[in-house]
Amino acid sequence: MYSFANDYSEGAHPKILEAMLKSNLEQNPGYGLDSHCERAKALIKKEIGQNDVEIHFIPGGTQTNLLAISSILRPHQCVVTVDTGHINVHETGAIEATGHKVVTVPNEEGKLKPEQIIKVLNYHKDEHMVQPKLVYISDTTELGTVYTKEELSAISKVCRQHNLYLFLDGARLSSALASDKNDLELKDIASLVDLFYIGGTKNGALLGEALVLCNDTIKEDFRYLIKTRGAMMAKGFLMGIQFETLFEDGLYYELGEHANQMARQIIKAFQKKKIVFYQPPCSNQLFPILTESEKQKLESSFIFQVEQEFPNGTYAVRFVTSWATTLESVQQLVRAIETL
Amino acid sequence: MYSFANDYSEGAHPKILEAMLKSNLEQNPGYGLDSHCERAKALIKKEIGQNDVEIHFIPGGTQTNLLAISSILRPHQCVVTVDTGHINVHETGAIEATGHKVVTVPNEEGKLKPEQIIKVLNYHKDEHMVQPKLVYISDTTELGTVYTKEELSAISKVCRQHNLYLFLDGARLSSALASDKNDLELKDIASLVDLFYIGGTKNGALLGEALVLCNDTIKEDFRYLIKTRGAMMAKGFLMGIQFETLFEDGLYYELGEHANQMARQIIKAFQKKKIVFYQPPCSNQLFPILTESEKQKLESSFIFQVEQEFPNGTYAVRFVTSWATTLESVQQLVRAIETL
Amino acid sequence: MYSFANDYSEGAHPKILEAMLKSNLEQNPGYGLDSHCERAKALIKKEIGQNDVEIHFIPGGTQTNLLAISSILRPHQCVVTVDTGHINVHETGAIEATGHKVVTVPNEEGKLKPEQIIKVLNYHKDEHMVQPKLVYISDTTELGTVYTKEELSAISKVCRQHNLYLFLDGARLSSALASDKNDLELKDIASLVDLFYIGGTKNGALLGEALVLCNDTIKEDFRYLIKTRGAMMAKGFLMGIQFETLFEDGLYYELGEHANQMARQIIKAFQKKKIVFYQPPCSNQLFPILTESEKQKLESSFIFQVEQEFPNGTYAVRFVTSWATTLESVQQLVRAIETL
Amino acid sequence: MYSFANDYSEGAHPKILEAMLKSNLEQNPGYGLDSHCERAKALIKKEIGQNDVEIHFIPGGTQTNLLAISSILRPHQCVVTVDTGHINVHETGAIEATGHKVVTVPNEEGKLKPEQIIKVLNYHKDEHMVQPKLVYISDTTELGTVYTKEELSAISKVCRQHNLYLFLDGARLSSALASDKNDLELKDIASLVDLFYIGGTKNGALLGEALVLCNDTIKEDFRYLIKTRGAMMAKGFLMGIQFETLFEDGLYYELGEHANQMARQIIKAFQKKKIVFYQPPCSNQLFPILTESEKQKLESSFIFQVEQEFPNGTYAVRFVTSWATTLESVQQLVRAIETL
Repeated sequence: MYSFANDYSEGAHPKILEAMLKSNLEQNPGYGLDSHCERAKALIKKEIGQNDVEIHFIPGGTQTNLLAISSILRPHQCVVTVDTGHINVHETGAIEATGHKVVTVPNEEGKLKPEQIIKVLNYHKDEHMVQPKLVYISDTTELGTVYTKEELSAISKVCRQHNLYLFLDGARLSSALASDKNDLELKDIASLVDLFYIGGTKNGALLGEALVLCNDTIKEDFRYLIKTRGAMMAKGFLMGIQFETLFEDGLYYELGEHANQMARQIIKAFQKKKIVFYQPPCSNQLFPILTESEKQKLESSFIFQVEQEFPNGTYAVRFVTSWATTLESVQQLVRAIETL
Repeated sequence: MYSFANDYSEGAHPKILEAMLKSNLEQNPGYGLDSHCERAKALIKKEIGQNDVEIHFIPGGTQTNLLAISSILRPHQCVVTVDTGHINVHETGAIEATGHKVVTVPNEEGKLKPEQIIKVLNYHKDEHMVQPKLVYISDTTELGTVYTKEELSAISKVCRQHNLYLFLDGARLSSALASDKNDLELKDIASLVDLFYIGGTKNGALLGEALVLCNDTIKEDFRYLIKTRGAMMAKGFLMGIQFETLFEDGLYYELGEHANQMARQIIKAFQKKKIVFYQPPCSNQLFPILTESEKQKLESSFIFQVEQEFPNGTYAVRFVTSWATTLESVQQLVRAIETL
Repeated sequence: MYSFANDYSEGAHPKILEAMLKSNLEQNPGYGLDSHCERAKALIKKEIGQNDVEIHFIPGGTQTNLLAISSILRPHQCVVTVDTGHINVHETGAIEATGHKVVTVPNEEGKLKPEQIIKVLNYHKDEHMVQPKLVYISDTTELGTVYTKEELSAISKVCRQHNLYLFLDGARLSSALASDKNDLELKDIASLVDLFYIGGTKNGALLGEALVLCNDTIKEDFRYLIKTRGAMMAKGFLMGIQFETLFEDGLYYELGEHANQMARQIIKAFQKKKIVFYQPPCSNQLFPILTESEKQKLESSFIFQVEQEFPNGTYAVRFVTSWATTLESVQQLVRAIETL
Repeated sequence: MYSFANDYSEGAHPKILEAMLKSNLEQNPGYGLDSHCERAKALIKKEIGQNDVEIHFIPGGTQTNLLAISSILRPHQCVVTVDTGHINVHETGAIEATGHKVVTVPNEEGKLKPEQIIKVLNYHKDEHMVQPKLVYISDTTELGTVYTKEELSAISKVCRQHNLYLFLDGARLSSALASDKNDLELKDIASLVDLFYIGGTKNGALLGEALVLCNDTIKEDFRYLIKTRGAMMAKGFLMGIQFETLFEDGLYYELGEHANQMARQIIKAFQKKKIVFYQPPCSNQLFPILTESEKQKLESSFIFQVEQEFPNGTYAVRFVTSWATTLESVQQLVRAIETL
């Protein structure tokens, strides 16, 4: 039974495994101080078009989020995000466990609007209330939507006007960049946010997220902070090798493109059947709304998640494609959709 | 230049990589809920001889320590360890960052003595002082020594008499088990401590530590706690595959044995030259004391760490062997030692 | 200019000051281990009708909240409250600073409904989400409303069915107990919740909240926890003396009654003028809705807070009465309202 | 039975109570934003001779310490103190509970030496170890000794050279300033440290410590931080009134002087009997070493603490005098010592 449950069901892209195999018995310095990490950072910096960003490779997404956020905020400060934000819903209180409140606003198609930031600022006006200091967004969002350059610029502008840091969670950034609705490049993002990460785990790596610090004021002592949070990998070179491979010939982009191409065929199939989506489909996460019977039919051959049950008995379900999704399985799914 | 700097310079043992390659395009459920993790756990339980322990795979050592300790202690409680304990010295305040004091006693050859625990308990007598609730030891210790069954039993007894939890950090447990001075088996450890971990990172895995919870009272909600600390890997099956490989045919023990055999040759060479050790050498970490000139000679061909400089101008240095250490490089080192 | 801004503008009720004066040069043991604290606890226990509750005097409200909540929850657990809950809005992230998420539901007249707790439990269903373990309510609520016995019983029942602790913040409990809408006694509260506190600061004491632990499972080591949070007062006997005075002849109840009687006159005056309230007025906090001109007129002679501005240009303002509110000032205010 | 157990056995100095009585029914703004706090701050600033320090009144000592330290340090940073430091021994892990390690060095007569700071800095050399960023000292120390201007200047110099903050805990600063060995004034302290506090609780106030922030970089958002730690008192004006009284006519100094004068008589009596002290006696805390029989004799008429039992069966005990110690009780004690 083929799984469209998520984009981390398989190991690593063959090129990545190959690179790991090739260098397996090399002796590398520990803790990310090796030449692979150096080269990977250089390749990413080139892509970003800025040489003065600082890059760190962190094993996982939740860890990257809790590390980044707790490194920036002082005890009385909070992070602002949409209600659907991963840090708010699906990290088991990881941010709060480092001492900081997550203040939320209602999402619009998974996205944050600049005017909501202003509203939060107006509301939190004195020392009896937590102080907003950081804004967290995800691209793609948790609902599979993407930010346009205009949207991200508007958020960035509000943040800079009000001395807020802006952090973009790019766990699925490869799919965002490959979206039809996207007009951002890595260099745009780096110039608009204070820090962001380029997800490896969900785009063909065994593990690893490349955290990019753009704002100088947050770079100080960052390796200490990584260690304090238990996020400094002894064999850090493993992440170096993987990001080297992802960025030396554009593999990172290719894999996002592949995931989205697979998704597009599924989108078309649902649309042909007049099946609507809970959120506008434009990346590797699709949320069609199915009836009980449609859901059951598809469940007999495919694995996917039920996100939400609606009062009328229909369901928003989630299909996820990835670098590893095969054309064959997509065609199978398309056929199954056609016969719904 | 060959490095004896540590036991995490190379990737993974070829059998592990092979297993990962073989299953690379399998689709596995995320977050450690896959069949590889299940099988790895079953294999370890068999080794331990107890079926009711609970096992979790955690990416790194510091992360395992901070997770385990913060999961057990309430806000007013502390962990007790020797001054050389990894959690005290080399984790950048990771334990304290979760809210708990690390109370230390002087080490004896890197080890904790039961009477020191009693002393700590007698000293911390009322609510104006932090309350000891957990004892942390490492085997091998940070100084390369090992606990005997008698020693561990005595510590265990004191802990149980005084309602203290006992946690054994087994980052280098494979080398401890392969030590000439060792008479412990995994099943002994599991019956004497409340929780411990079996290190993979320093024994041939790319990453991963198998945390074994023996005491029922600490098992509740542990997967929640893993997630809160950012230690739940999306591709948890990767650690499952690695521990499956380590434990299906005794590879775990073989690799520890290999590391120690390599170390024994180096020990002999130093001893032949009447070079003494800072701590009794009995595992894969050796601490010979070298003069400035001896140190410089060896540094011209080998990488190793200087641990401490003594007032008389000599140095305790550290040579570490591992699963990956080649006989050739050891022979080269032995020759270099002979010509000191 | 008379202030109705809050119920902590003045020092202490004269009887309290008198008792403090009388015992001023007595020598008492430190840290709350004195005979005044003992007697105060005995008097409160009598009132509660339970001898096995444990009582601790804590200097302030936010401190009591952060202490109580962080003492109960493990790292992956959260507290549930209404959006208007004091811990959510007006404690500058104090709860989160101890490591715990505050999960909120929309309030209904400042109150929590049992079915909302169920909803929260149904939503938080696995280890990727924070685990609800404690419910926090306030009586009076932050909007001046009170819980009936039926309402509190229903919440209590849901909490016990689902293994949730129930914590009642009684910063203004004296006013709640004196409300026309109240049918709860201290003994009811003690039997329905796991812990609660009886506010002194806002009811005639210089400072001090009496935290009552009803559930045995949360009593262990509580004095340690108080000290860890910096909440153990050297001169703890000062709080003992104050609560002794409050509870030896019913002064605690009298002061709540006085505050509410003062409030009732103000309520009547507003109602006579057909001025409606933002929330049903039934305690010492009143939230009339004023026009700009009404607000300005009253501001010329009285101090009160603006809580909210509505889109139509009117304001919900807050008038607070207390043990110290004088009849004269209330009559003045009533006259001012009459001439609006 | 007269108690020399501590300096917080009685309520408040009569002048302070009088001031509180006088202003009891005044209406004051909450949270320390009142005219008494303003005046108290102005009086203290005058004493300090600097107008740009920032002053906050905090209810208790442990709370002041945890607030101050956690406000300054980032997650990977630690505070350095002597092993006898109050934050290390007698605050039940309060500092660690805010996330920070307390690194200790051996004390010399309760004091920290500049060279020990250097040693700590040399030892903590990379990101695998916690980063020293703040030095904590107490004056008087926990052993009743005091810092001279030369000593404090030397510590200050090392701190500034190495970018460390310096925090002086002045819970018993009044007794330090009144010591025969003291040559510091408040203005010296303010110019040598980054922050310090002037203790009220142990010098005649009901409660309250005046935290003085001298270094501009730590002032930002301090009221937020106070609130986050639960240390913002609703009736903050009570502390304002007390510090106003302490500083308007030199009462603060007088009370320290009184405590020390009482102590001097006790010192002389012990010295006459050739009873030696555990630490050089020079403030209101005295640590004579008594035999079992001497201890028992004194215990029959006086309350005092046993600090330490020595292997030879003698005891270091602690006698504490205060603003409230009566001449009569001291004379009684002197006579009892004479007849030992």
